[in-house]
Amino acid sequence: MRVAVIGVGLIGGSIGLAARRAGAEVSGWDPDEAVLARALELGALDAGAEELSGAVAGAEAVFVAAPVGALGEAVAGALAAAGPDCVVSDVGSVKRPLAEASADERFVGGHPLAGSEGTGVEHSRADLFEGATWYLTPARTSTAGVLYERLHALLRSFGARPAAIDAATHDRLMANISHLPHVLANVLAAQAAGLLASDDDGVERLPAIGPSFRDAIRVAGANSAIWADIYTSNADALLSALDELGARLEAVRGMLAAGDAQALREWTDLARAERDALLGEAIDGGSVHELRVQVPNRPGVIAEIALALGEAGVNIGDLTLSPSRDNSRGVVTLWIGGERQAARAQELVTGLGFPLVRA
Amino acid sequence: MRVAVIGVGLIGGSIGLAARRAGAEVSGWDPDEAVLARALELGALDAGAEELSGAVAGAEAVFVAAPVGALGEAVAGALAAAGPDCVVSDVGSVKRPLAEASADERFVGGHPLAGSEGTGVEHSRADLFEGATWYLTPARTSTAGVLYERLHALLRSFGARPAAIDAATHDRLMANISHLPHVLANVLAAQAAGLLASDDDGVERLPAIGPSFRDAIRVAGANSAIWADIYTSNADALLSALDELGARLEAVRGMLAAGDAQALREWTDLARAERDALLGEAIDGGSVHELRVQVPNRPGVIAEIALALGEAGVNIGDLTLSPSRDNSRGVVTLWIGGERQAARAQELVTGLGFPLVRA
Repeated sequence: MRVAVIGVGLIGGSIGLAARRAGAEVSGWDPDEAVLARALELGALDAGAEELSGAVAGAEAVFVAAPVGALGEAVAGALAAAGPDCVVSDVGSVKRPLAEASADERFVGGHPLAGSEGTGVEHSRADLFEGATWYLTPARTSTAGVLYERLHALLRSFGARPAAIDAATHDRLMANISHLPHVLANVLAAQAAGLLASDDDGVERLPAIGPSFRDAIRVAGANSAIWADIYTSNADALLSALDELGARLEAVRGMLAAGDAQALREWTDLARAERDALLGEAIDGGSVHELRVQVPNRPGVIAEIALALGEAGVNIGDLTLSPSRDNSRGVVTLWIGGERQAARAQELVTGLGFPLVRA
Repeated sequence: MRVAVIGVGLIGGSIGLAARRAGAEVSGWDPDEAVLARALELGALDAGAEELSGAVAGAEAVFVAAPVGALGEAVAGALAAAGPDCVVSDVGSVKRPLAEASADERFVGGHPLAGSEGTGVEHSRADLFEGATWYLTPARTSTAGVLYERLHALLRSFGARPAAIDAATHDRLMANISHLPHVLANVLAAQAAGLLASDDDGVERLPAIGPSFRDAIRVAGANSAIWADIYTSNADALLSALDELGARLEAVRGMLAAGDAQALREWTDLARAERDALLGEAIDGGSVHELRVQVPNRPGVIAEIALALGEAGVNIGDLTLSPSRDNSRGVVTLWIGGERQAARAQELVTGLGFPLVRA
């Protein structure tokens, strides 16, 4: 497998390391020559190219790991340079802005939920994606099944858990579980730091803080260039998330103003259950089930299945696609962990009108 | 040193373990007999008493580690049972409700910034307070210096960093760095869990979440009985913190609505600086300076000095009190780490009208 990485910072560098560890040959390009040289030194790439098109030439899979603000142009450049049998993906935190690229059957938007406190290629790690959810946003109407399959397998070889999701749903989700928490961390840090302004003597001093507040502000002030891009790219979804937060906080204010300890207890108990459910979502159980599905050979059909399962929270462990001899249709084989998830998957694919193939 | 612990859950049990490790003899009482028996088994106590007064009898220092809602009564009981030369403290997260007890010269409110995800005596640890800030709220008008000194030394022997603070300032600080973050964690968990309601097919599914969101909701749904008490006891300060949060979020909304990436970048950079300052506050540097201060022998004078330094963020490493022969005045010796902090301490104590004693 020949893989190209465009932009070799923390994520691009880690993709290079993970792909090489999985046996791929990795070429790369970065607008910053020094960064490209360092990525080579660190073993994140087999070869560096002088231009984006040089890195992409001959690749079977391309990852564009540019900042959100530069993604559109970089993805367009990668699609222009890539051959017809090459899947192009990206790692941006906001997915709707790439809707134009999504009309190309070779493009599948992506977003790994992985990171580190450090940034830059220096902090790259081959195991950065181990166990991490990697959201994919294929297009129901265009994505080529064989290319989606290749990307899925490649991400599995990095140790990641690919999960298909609609781009708009993804952006709404990220507004709530990533962008809003970052905003709150910034605001909490500012508010705590602001407490020093209330000193009588006008001398600056900062309050001593405990371990839980350290967690609460850990992500405050993350790379401001990257985050200003993310916030503005997803401003509508983030504003909606802030609206909802405001309404929820209004309810808390009501309980506090009324001194309603009973309501506060119930509200806290509910939050406990919600937290446990969210933290537990990653735990799969049970044996792996094989599901063989007969599908017509048209663009977007794999995307349709992956999205239906991804949006129902059914995790596709592995996925292969076998075309029929005349290439008019094919069989998708899905491996799903756990009895309940497999049953749900079966229900969903038959619900889409695709018959199961008995072994 | 004879220490009594009233209430032997996570914090009370850990105080017992830390005090015994430091060589104290520890008696204890808990309203739940089974909990008391378990604390004895775990070595958190030398002896268990059948009543609160039995545990307190003969003690030189008492820690009341009851839930916030039961604190008032338990502290009053401890003060009634304690002898004239016994310091009584508590570990409650909200300090103003104990204002009545604070009129007693033997009482010093306290609050260690330490905890664990587990609760109950089973999770007690002798090293729970190592390096932890332990807020003390002595009363300027009453607290006995010799008893404050004893408590300070005892907390140091647990490895904690005692820091004096006014009760109202403490509660405002906690509203911002503890109670508000807990509220936000609850709301974030509820909001993320609520995303499943938007499924077309009506089937419950939870979004896959990344590591930073795990941090953001880690404290969600903390023990609801304890937290409903804390929220209602500090409702006014928490409502003010929510007001300020609302105003700060309104500013963010403005930047998002205007698509003002430049303003978002600057706001994020500022949050970075604020976060770094808050996370760095615990780092002291430099050699330890000794400061000898001459003080009149009247209640509250040590409290006055400790509060002035605590509120200026000057950490008192150690503190001793030596009365003069006729007991009319005395010398407080303070050990302060770092040149700048020591200079600031000198400025503050002389500003209070207490002359320095040259060695």
